[in-house]
Amino acid sequence: MKVGIINVTGYAGCELARILYQHPEARLTSVTGRSAAGQNLAEVFPHLASLNLSITPELEGSLDLVFSALPHKASAEAVIPVLEQGIKVIDISADFRLKQANEYTEWYGVNHPDPSYLEEAVFGLPELHREAIKQARLIANPGCYPTSAILGMAPAIKHNLIENDIIIDSKSGISGAGRSLGLTTHYSEVNENVMAYSLGGHRHLPEITQELGALSSDTLSITFLTHLIPMTRGILSSCYAKLTPEYLENGSDPTARVRAVYEEFYADHPFVTITPQPPQTKQTLGNNRCLVYPTVDQRTGRLIVISCIDNLVKGAAGQAVQNMNLMCGWPESMALETLAVYP
Amino acid sequence: MKVGIINVTGYAGCELARILYQHPEARLTSVTGRSAAGQNLAEVFPHLASLNLSITPELEGSLDLVFSALPHKASAEAVIPVLEQGIKVIDISADFRLKQANEYTEWYGVNHPDPSYLEEAVFGLPELHREAIKQARLIANPGCYPTSAILGMAPAIKHNLIENDIIIDSKSGISGAGRSLGLTTHYSEVNENVMAYSLGGHRHLPEITQELGALSSDTLSITFLTHLIPMTRGILSSCYAKLTPEYLENGSDPTARVRAVYEEFYADHPFVTITPQPPQTKQTLGNNRCLVYPTVDQRTGRLIVISCIDNLVKGAAGQAVQNMNLMCGWPESMALETLAVYP
Amino acid sequence: MKVGIINVTGYAGCELARILYQHPEARLTSVTGRSAAGQNLAEVFPHLASLNLSITPELEGSLDLVFSALPHKASAEAVIPVLEQGIKVIDISADFRLKQANEYTEWYGVNHPDPSYLEEAVFGLPELHREAIKQARLIANPGCYPTSAILGMAPAIKHNLIENDIIIDSKSGISGAGRSLGLTTHYSEVNENVMAYSLGGHRHLPEITQELGALSSDTLSITFLTHLIPMTRGILSSCYAKLTPEYLENGSDPTARVRAVYEEFYADHPFVTITPQPPQTKQTLGNNRCLVYPTVDQRTGRLIVISCIDNLVKGAAGQAVQNMNLMCGWPESMALETLAVYP
Amino acid sequence: MKVGIINVTGYAGCELARILYQHPEARLTSVTGRSAAGQNLAEVFPHLASLNLSITPELEGSLDLVFSALPHKASAEAVIPVLEQGIKVIDISADFRLKQANEYTEWYGVNHPDPSYLEEAVFGLPELHREAIKQARLIANPGCYPTSAILGMAPAIKHNLIENDIIIDSKSGISGAGRSLGLTTHYSEVNENVMAYSLGGHRHLPEITQELGALSSDTLSITFLTHLIPMTRGILSSCYAKLTPEYLENGSDPTARVRAVYEEFYADHPFVTITPQPPQTKQTLGNNRCLVYPTVDQRTGRLIVISCIDNLVKGAAGQAVQNMNLMCGWPESMALETLAVYP
Repeated sequence: MKVGIINVTGYAGCELARILYQHPEARLTSVTGRSAAGQNLAEVFPHLASLNLSITPELEGSLDLVFSALPHKASAEAVIPVLEQGIKVIDISADFRLKQANEYTEWYGVNHPDPSYLEEAVFGLPELHREAIKQARLIANPGCYPTSAILGMAPAIKHNLIENDIIIDSKSGISGAGRSLGLTTHYSEVNENVMAYSLGGHRHLPEITQELGALSSDTLSITFLTHLIPMTRGILSSCYAKLTPEYLENGSDPTARVRAVYEEFYADHPFVTITPQPPQTKQTLGNNRCLVYPTVDQRTGRLIVISCIDNLVKGAAGQAVQNMNLMCGWPESMALETLAVYP
Repeated sequence: MKVGIINVTGYAGCELARILYQHPEARLTSVTGRSAAGQNLAEVFPHLASLNLSITPELEGSLDLVFSALPHKASAEAVIPVLEQGIKVIDISADFRLKQANEYTEWYGVNHPDPSYLEEAVFGLPELHREAIKQARLIANPGCYPTSAILGMAPAIKHNLIENDIIIDSKSGISGAGRSLGLTTHYSEVNENVMAYSLGGHRHLPEITQELGALSSDTLSITFLTHLIPMTRGILSSCYAKLTPEYLENGSDPTARVRAVYEEFYADHPFVTITPQPPQTKQTLGNNRCLVYPTVDQRTGRLIVISCIDNLVKGAAGQAVQNMNLMCGWPESMALETLAVYP
Repeated sequence: MKVGIINVTGYAGCELARILYQHPEARLTSVTGRSAAGQNLAEVFPHLASLNLSITPELEGSLDLVFSALPHKASAEAVIPVLEQGIKVIDISADFRLKQANEYTEWYGVNHPDPSYLEEAVFGLPELHREAIKQARLIANPGCYPTSAILGMAPAIKHNLIENDIIIDSKSGISGAGRSLGLTTHYSEVNENVMAYSLGGHRHLPEITQELGALSSDTLSITFLTHLIPMTRGILSSCYAKLTPEYLENGSDPTARVRAVYEEFYADHPFVTITPQPPQTKQTLGNNRCLVYPTVDQRTGRLIVISCIDNLVKGAAGQAVQNMNLMCGWPESMALETLAVYP
Repeated sequence: MKVGIINVTGYAGCELARILYQHPEARLTSVTGRSAAGQNLAEVFPHLASLNLSITPELEGSLDLVFSALPHKASAEAVIPVLEQGIKVIDISADFRLKQANEYTEWYGVNHPDPSYLEEAVFGLPELHREAIKQARLIANPGCYPTSAILGMAPAIKHNLIENDIIIDSKSGISGAGRSLGLTTHYSEVNENVMAYSLGGHRHLPEITQELGALSSDTLSITFLTHLIPMTRGILSSCYAKLTPEYLENGSDPTARVRAVYEEFYADHPFVTITPQPPQTKQTLGNNRCLVYPTVDQRTGRLIVISCIDNLVKGAAGQAVQNMNLMCGWPESMALETLAVYP
């Protein structure tokens, strides 16, 4: 099967190319890029030289599935014509993640190019929507922060363990800010430094609210705060919510009960592991796994969940390949079995 | 005036020596260390060669004030005889921070060597206890995490802005784990990595609870979670608490009102700055400042406070010198005026 | 085929386990470790949980090939009995690399446990000794520095391009210092720092001299200096030697002629790439490739060669698997095809 | 005395401001910047808030001495009118470092704006030109790499210890590449990475050749190669040259003799220390010291010198203040006494 990547020159795009290189069924045959069009992929990314591809301004040749790694708005504009040719699309941008067009406008500051696709698009988090993904022709690949946050809190919300007030404190490596240039990606500015950002509200919040909200009978109140820390890859989200009094009183050892709920929830999902010890982002480097550690702060009756991913793999390109595998009827883990690179 | 440092060979000890080198009134004349006794200070710390001191097993010469940078328990045992000679003591360990001896036993796993000093000792956070510090002969220098957390939340608690349920999510550089060897200080293990630790409860929690609790008419419920991030120095604490409904309803623009409370609270304190933008730890490197940024998450009515320090300066050695300055009647900022090293 | 690893608990050992997990022919069935014996491999290395192995004090079950990742001396003592059972051995320690037992004694400070194996052992650098490796039963896997240095200088020496005086200035990530604890692996000591070390002579020098010397009709004079830089993985060696006057005068554009020699030398070797631009260690992360960039400093007539590897892959575990593939008649690249993890 | 900084918004400029803040004689009263004109200095650099200065498009008020931290060419154009007003100038750019205008054109690709000043300008390395600096009205502050390299090799050349063929392999932190944006300052590209660059010749080579050449009776052949390593500040240069046969034969223990030459050479210079152990860049962080360690590779008769500085202090702003102190008749170390920030 032949696949293409629109905008291979960002980090999500080049990571997709890296993973697809080891895919036994999907062959990457066309990659596009704007400023780099005309160059060999190896000139921009020497580590991808083995792919032996040229970057073209537009997709070339017949393709069965296309990934888009364009920024929002540009992505919708580019993939709708692809869809209309009958080609499956996995969109890594934010363009099809939100079900409500007005929310898109509110958070992204532009009107959606074509809201008619919002209902059809499937939010590509296999642990919540695996069956719908299998049938989909348009996947909205989740954001990196939402992947860690939703996987961290979904079991607790779905099973009514907690009250509706949730805090998600996320720490991300710098590659989450992309390959574009700016002071927040400048080495000397961000090395030996940690900062909180987007205190007025991060664009990934509405995705989290939408997906966790759909699991709850209640309206959720979510505070979501993002931080940049001096490492290249990885997101660790620390999630906090009060256990309900009923749950706390309803038996002994709430941590063991919570862990059992989480293990059951993800029993059938190969890429979420409930870890026996608090996980570290390094344990996911280059790998598609999400490591989740739920525990209870006994002094306050609060659930704490630590959730770790590689933002470019489970948070972007790896999850996109996982979605492709499901859409194409291949084993969900195909090309995603390699272990994390540690240390 | 002559001062000494017991156990100069850890990071707090050598940072004290660095700061004292530029102090115009206090002269460092005696430093001790256990395994390094007999060596010149320059052999262990080449950057301190200008001090031209030898490390001795015990303090030498007549001294007016002594800092102890020993681990807990050993520190109390070492400084009580010093106190009894009439020498002022600033203890950087945890030994005199908690007012309740049973709390000490609970968190440190040993009985306190001499609880009779717990009442006398002054918790050395000048922004809360300046007048008592001026009169003290025994200072319990606060922990690094508590310094950032208490300074971040004290105004909100003192002025009843918030409900009694508080979350403090702290991110620390690796030097906070000290100079001793272990996998959590091993470069290859912690570089390109972030981890939460002490999920069962960190030893700095009771200090935070004690000091913030003393400002509140209510009993506080505090969840405190610590993370190691890949940088050498710096702590950033992200603090979360619901504003009370009364406060939220009582006027317009809660962020502006909160900021005014914070600015007033610290108006007279040279080392706490309420910043116009979210602060970064790098803005405090090598410097005694605490940068505090309070804001309100309008969607949830939650107060968010970001608080940054250099864990070895305002979180340890710089604060110790600030305390010495107060105890000795010198200007509070003496030897602490140098700006942060940026980038 | 069943393989075992003696001392899986260091970085070379756990990296071997990671790579073997994706090997279609070799199955890792036994791993040993001293202090960790009795633990599940996942307890020590969570990223290896999928291997589902227990660490035992001694190798267990029938095995066809054994890797040893023990320190020197201990390794020879452990693998000789294995060899004598007729099992092939790939030794990652230094114990069989030097052909002269007295050199071993000089550099390692102990007598060799059994010098009778030194002649038989094959220095496991496939780009120099591929045919011998295919026939070998005992492989001395090269050191990480020597791999980068020898691959960088071998073509120039073999083809008499340079005079016999060579400088190799190598920069290594901290994982090269292993997983054991010490100030040179302590994060706060080595982060934001660079240092030269072993100025009196690094143990990897005699390997380099032996292997490069065997390619030369002349006696080589090699200065080899090693540096630790603040990153986890990667070695970059900058190699300097004067081109001979004959070579410089013998035609136009010495850089082009040198590049042609290098390309020809490695034409048949899948893991050495002569790069069009100066390479970066990041382009090899997690990957078995050695990137080599030869150029000529026109002002001084000096050959400069930049050579990059991942010290734990081509510098240790990946090369060991490459050697196993050759010994077993499998494709040389088996299990080693994954691309570098970038960024 | 009142001083100004032209272009305070780069790293050399803001570091100058940091150091001048603690200077008891020079008061910084005017700072300029192009894109940032009109902003308060604290908006661009929060750590400089205490200076309480506004950034203006042009220098303001009467000034006694001006530092320029503009890029080359723009700097000469800006400072010549200042000089002509009778104000002393310390130029941190490359515009007045080279004595030959044609060399400037060759390396910087533009004609010098006014070569008539090249003879008058004094190369501001106090360890070589202290007396001339005291009399100068125009100082060409040396580049960061040349400072480390020249200080590392000057004694050996001056005293004819070595042959005329020298290799300087330098490793720099990323701040050396400035605050401007590009892939070589992008965190995700340069973190966990090391690369050689400017293999065709780095612009700092002619400065090194000029200054070391002036100490030699012979013509020097210098290979100079620069590397970027993942840290913010610091340069370590490893310098290599053959000792002359006469020197080697002329007595016992060449290392001791070389060290004696170096110690004597710098005996009167407060900012160069001949270290007993190989130095580390971290031992200079934020500090104006150059640490030099000469030794002899006994196997090859080669002198190896390790030289460390903080590229923004002794390599730029600190050295500029040292020059100002000399020009103004103040103690050479004024405002430069603070110790390195370690760890």
